[in-house]
Amino acid sequence: MTLPRLALVPGEPAGIGPELCARLAQTPRTDCTLAVFADPATLQAAADALGLPLRVLAPGARAEQPGDVVVHPMPNVAPVAFGHADPRNAQAVIEALHVGAQHCLDGTFDGLVTGPVHKATINAGGIAYTGTTELLARQAGCDVVMMLANPTVRVALATTHLPLRAVPDAITRDGLERTLRILHRAMRLDFGIAHPRIAVLGLNPHAGEDGHLGREEIDTIAPVLHALRQQGMVLDGPLPADTAFLPAKLRDYDAVLAMYHDQGLPVLKFSGFEQAVNLTLGLPYPRVAVDHGTALDLAGRGIADPSSLFAAVETCARLARAKETA
Amino acid sequence: MTLPRLALVPGEPAGIGPELCARLAQTPRTDCTLAVFADPATLQAAADALGLPLRVLAPGARAEQPGDVVVHPMPNVAPVAFGHADPRNAQAVIEALHVGAQHCLDGTFDGLVTGPVHKATINAGGIAYTGTTELLARQAGCDVVMMLANPTVRVALATTHLPLRAVPDAITRDGLERTLRILHRAMRLDFGIAHPRIAVLGLNPHAGEDGHLGREEIDTIAPVLHALRQQGMVLDGPLPADTAFLPAKLRDYDAVLAMYHDQGLPVLKFSGFEQAVNLTLGLPYPRVAVDHGTALDLAGRGIADPSSLFAAVETCARLARAKETA
Repeated sequence: MTLPRLALVPGEPAGIGPELCARLAQTPRTDCTLAVFADPATLQAAADALGLPLRVLAPGARAEQPGDVVVHPMPNVAPVAFGHADPRNAQAVIEALHVGAQHCLDGTFDGLVTGPVHKATINAGGIAYTGTTELLARQAGCDVVMMLANPTVRVALATTHLPLRAVPDAITRDGLERTLRILHRAMRLDFGIAHPRIAVLGLNPHAGEDGHLGREEIDTIAPVLHALRQQGMVLDGPLPADTAFLPAKLRDYDAVLAMYHDQGLPVLKFSGFEQAVNLTLGLPYPRVAVDHGTALDLAGRGIADPSSLFAAVETCARLARAKETA
Repeated sequence: MTLPRLALVPGEPAGIGPELCARLAQTPRTDCTLAVFADPATLQAAADALGLPLRVLAPGARAEQPGDVVVHPMPNVAPVAFGHADPRNAQAVIEALHVGAQHCLDGTFDGLVTGPVHKATINAGGIAYTGTTELLARQAGCDVVMMLANPTVRVALATTHLPLRAVPDAITRDGLERTLRILHRAMRLDFGIAHPRIAVLGLNPHAGEDGHLGREEIDTIAPVLHALRQQGMVLDGPLPADTAFLPAKLRDYDAVLAMYHDQGLPVLKFSGFEQAVNLTLGLPYPRVAVDHGTALDLAGRGIADPSSLFAAVETCARLARAKETA
């Protein structure tokens, strides 16, 4: 079996993305081959700042020793000063994501790993951008589900970056059914779990307490779960969010579907932020991102924790292999 | 210093409350004296079911040996079958709460510990009841704040049992200021923390991301924090809920104020449900409740975990002593 080929996009050049890539390049991989879509000069500067060896290789070459990194050049237009994100480089950041993803859609790469992007800087650069998940979904033309995972728990979200006020109306029967189908399929095909068990949270406290604390469970969530159970899915819920996250309960499930961002992510971050990765389910290729920001204040200092990027690469390689053998 | 006198109300007689009280009575206390407000026959039946010795003493008597329990009789009207909550006993359950709390208001007791009540059974008994916290606040005529605590984290709630849809409009400047004053005062006087550091979460994901994901942080939360900081309170926020719960961050704070139920409680339950207690801040006396339900399915079997009740008594005794010495 050939090794999966992963496209790695470091994200904001002034953040910790480039130095994490330089650290990644110090350990030759046995589970995948990697190519970085970035400005070679920025990678070199990040490696220099950390005192790490780096040898930039052309696309198609093969990394053989510590420090070797294959780079598809995506030049920045403005010079990069670590810690100071420059909107003039926004176009290059977004372009690298598009090009890396396009290679995955074309089949020349088998998976996409992405570092952190600085949303405000992209917008300041004149590009309408709400998130990489949304960008990749639009490019591929498909519905996706955002899932965060660490070794303790996998949390998928029915809604992502919405004002809390907009959440209840954004939970619809159709949308929830689509989300559950994507999640269920990913658990089976990408994660190799033949009969995934999914915990579905309620929207309201105590999952609405039989309608006393809101009717969305009765009117929207329960009917969808009922219909999908008829089709063979193993779905528990709607469950009260607080007690569903008891460690003993979590062990019963392969994934938790939370209705919104702050209902699902605090436990995930608490239980293992460093090891957490952000997955986009539903794309034609596996995409795994780090679960942290650009950390501009740490950039170039060599103190940023690379665990999330290492976990993202490992996870993406595993998912790409699963896809190949499916 | 005399020992604090705690009133203990077991709650639903058909649930695990009575047996937990019987287990509590097996270990003579050195930190407080306890009196149980309940039907003596129910306590006796619970002790018998578990094969535990129990000697019921009259009010004013002194518990001297394992199994001794001082009881203020609050007779049930219907016979109690463990596991089967009977609405005919709803009045006695509520009456016991009122009488125990009144003793605390009168100063004949120094703190109130409560077991779990079965909300649906109380309502089925014809009594309008939304929760014990609300009942005690009304009886005492004061504003209160609900706080859950375990050895890892203390989480107070700006709103409690509301449909998610009603939460944004329930967060007002006045209400939030009242909540923070009660929380801050309790941290100082009851918990003995001279300069409490409080993390205040935002309402929206990423705390609204500078208004891109909702304006409540800018319009409501931040102005209140600004005003209270001028008065000397140490308040961080509004903070994104997910990253505020990182273990390293939590160590910086004495309490976290969450804006709503499912934002604050999942991490609390995940990080130590068994040891968790539910406190009512703002009453003239300390009140501590267990953080679990009636567990009707476990009642009378001796397998219910008594940790939360033990922790509640210990916490209430400590708070009562702090009040006395303040």
